[in-house]
Amino acid sequence: MTSLGDLPLREDLRGREPYGAPQLDVPVRLNTNENPYPPSERLVEALAKAVAAAAASLNRYPDRDALALRAELADFLNHDTPGAELTAERVWAANGSNEIIQQILQAFGGPGRCALGFEPSYSMHPIITHVTGTRWINAHRDEDFGLDVDRALAAIDEHRPDVVFLTSPNNPTGTSLPLEVIEAIAAAAPGMVVVDEAYAEFRREDTLSALELLAEHPRLIVTRTMSKAFAMAGVRLGYLAAHPAVIEALLLVRLPYHLSSITQAAARTALAHADELLGSVAQLRTERDLIVGWLRGQGLRVADSDANFVLFGTFPDRRRVWQAMLDQGVLIREVGPPQWLRVTVGTPAEMAAFRSALTTALKEIQ
Amino acid sequence: MTSLGDLPLREDLRGREPYGAPQLDVPVRLNTNENPYPPSERLVEALAKAVAAAAASLNRYPDRDALALRAELADFLNHDTPGAELTAERVWAANGSNEIIQQILQAFGGPGRCALGFEPSYSMHPIITHVTGTRWINAHRDEDFGLDVDRALAAIDEHRPDVVFLTSPNNPTGTSLPLEVIEAIAAAAPGMVVVDEAYAEFRREDTLSALELLAEHPRLIVTRTMSKAFAMAGVRLGYLAAHPAVIEALLLVRLPYHLSSITQAAARTALAHADELLGSVAQLRTERDLIVGWLRGQGLRVADSDANFVLFGTFPDRRRVWQAMLDQGVLIREVGPPQWLRVTVGTPAEMAAFRSALTTALKEIQ
Repeated sequence: MTSLGDLPLREDLRGREPYGAPQLDVPVRLNTNENPYPPSERLVEALAKAVAAAAASLNRYPDRDALALRAELADFLNHDTPGAELTAERVWAANGSNEIIQQILQAFGGPGRCALGFEPSYSMHPIITHVTGTRWINAHRDEDFGLDVDRALAAIDEHRPDVVFLTSPNNPTGTSLPLEVIEAIAAAAPGMVVVDEAYAEFRREDTLSALELLAEHPRLIVTRTMSKAFAMAGVRLGYLAAHPAVIEALLLVRLPYHLSSITQAAARTALAHADELLGSVAQLRTERDLIVGWLRGQGLRVADSDANFVLFGTFPDRRRVWQAMLDQGVLIREVGPPQWLRVTVGTPAEMAAFRSALTTALKEIQ
Repeated sequence: MTSLGDLPLREDLRGREPYGAPQLDVPVRLNTNENPYPPSERLVEALAKAVAAAAASLNRYPDRDALALRAELADFLNHDTPGAELTAERVWAANGSNEIIQQILQAFGGPGRCALGFEPSYSMHPIITHVTGTRWINAHRDEDFGLDVDRALAAIDEHRPDVVFLTSPNNPTGTSLPLEVIEAIAAAAPGMVVVDEAYAEFRREDTLSALELLAEHPRLIVTRTMSKAFAMAGVRLGYLAAHPAVIEALLLVRLPYHLSSITQAAARTALAHADELLGSVAQLRTERDLIVGWLRGQGLRVADSDANFVLFGTFPDRRRVWQAMLDQGVLIREVGPPQWLRVTVGTPAEMAAFRSALTTALKEIQ
């Protein structure tokens, strides 16, 4: 019987495990930073109608460059960050921001090149870097999950990376980078600088988006997703804003017709209902700030969060806490720095279940 | 003003052009091997209903491993090739067979490895090979677009490729490989052997699918798509059948949640209506055989075709013929070996327009 070990797999992949949080069927799922609010009946109807319209010509390939969708994403970003002045030619879309990141690394990374990030951060950055044959350099975040600008610049000066990844708000810590830090890195980096803003819509009032910096920095890329605030994880739509020349580069590596007609139709429908979809953001922010306060009230350490999740600890045996909560039907994520756990902000009822399960778990481990 | 040349693009991508046939808005589009028959009203309704059902939980990530879809694709292949005995664990799906090919090269190709194909063939094979950092070797097809088995085995023995691409029916020539040729290559190749069967459903009665060989060859991969016979180019659903260990390997490189909930729902709906969708295949085969006969009747050379397109020639200045036909509203494809042109088989009315336009074009170039 043939097994994986018998196949001529790339040597550097041998012994690796597939990425992915367990997809367990439990009552309260607070492990993958999904938005807990499903689309309204009105939006479901609009999606069905849009897909039916697209379906009439599904025998044809989609618009290869997704121009209408990109124009509407640009409009949305201009609303998010007034002054961004984006257009379709400055926006690109793909199947989730994972594919966006892969395309960036295929164009600007690859064999003989390196990408640098500051961990703990989104774990797909090093994984995709590796799969594209790019070398990964972890320059580490500070103890408080922030990023000291002098230390960051020294790391960039030392390694001269072809691609720098900054994640703000950062996953799994929730912490944001001040615009001055991003700007200093964009000015100093010799290659491309990617600011992964998957959670940007959840940021607090005084946190600014790196979209503000695009006009001045042609090697800066800001990535976004419809999976989180937009509550469209199932649609798989990631996108980016950057200089038009960056998008010209991505056209050289993107798989032709990568974005299906129905994905384009569904994403455009979601954008037309942005007010409804983003309506949950204020509530999730409020719930997030409440849970941060509650966790601190339990004597736990909690990272400041601009996202829809909260990192808390510390636990000498975090697996025991994670399992004790799962036993009570609450699935959170064992991820990031050792001794810390991450919880996605859910509905008020889900957060009540979380508080109850954690209270029980904390008693058990004493 | 920054231009692409100012960006730190990978050196080997400099000067390249984005892949893709022109997407022109003309009356008769016979250039990308699409199925000319759009889905029925009944199917459009079923698609809308399935997407509406999936939409109710679009705030959640899709089933990462698309197990239900893979089981239904296996059923379809078992029907296509009785005795294939496929199951979900032997089938994998992605956003178009381009993404399938990319994942295969990411797992089994990459820096320091090489892939070998026999051109003229599907032009994305070398392009994706290149983007994944794999070296491409063109071992050439024979003059008649076939593949002499001794010459093929000699090329494999000389280059020891990590991945071999066979395309059957071959694009853009339409010619198929006898099962004995595929079997001899699968037995001799030191690495993976990919048989790209994007057009398999159009094959003539006596042409066999490489699915027949899977049980005996754990390093053999057969790829298929729903873009052609299934008339679902807009859905972007490619898939493969192989040994379960091959799929374990692909799990190490696939982007998590690569296949959206609505893509999974749409593809499953299309499979449930396979009889309707594949109903056009018999008609397209008939139309293909008619156009092959007609072209030969005009004194032209025509490659035997098991696909939904026909390669014909030869023209000292094929661009002039292509342009003369476009001027009459008929878009065909300038692709493949010099002096040849490729026409997709359309509806009877489209083929009448093609014959008329070509007749005029042939007079013009005399």
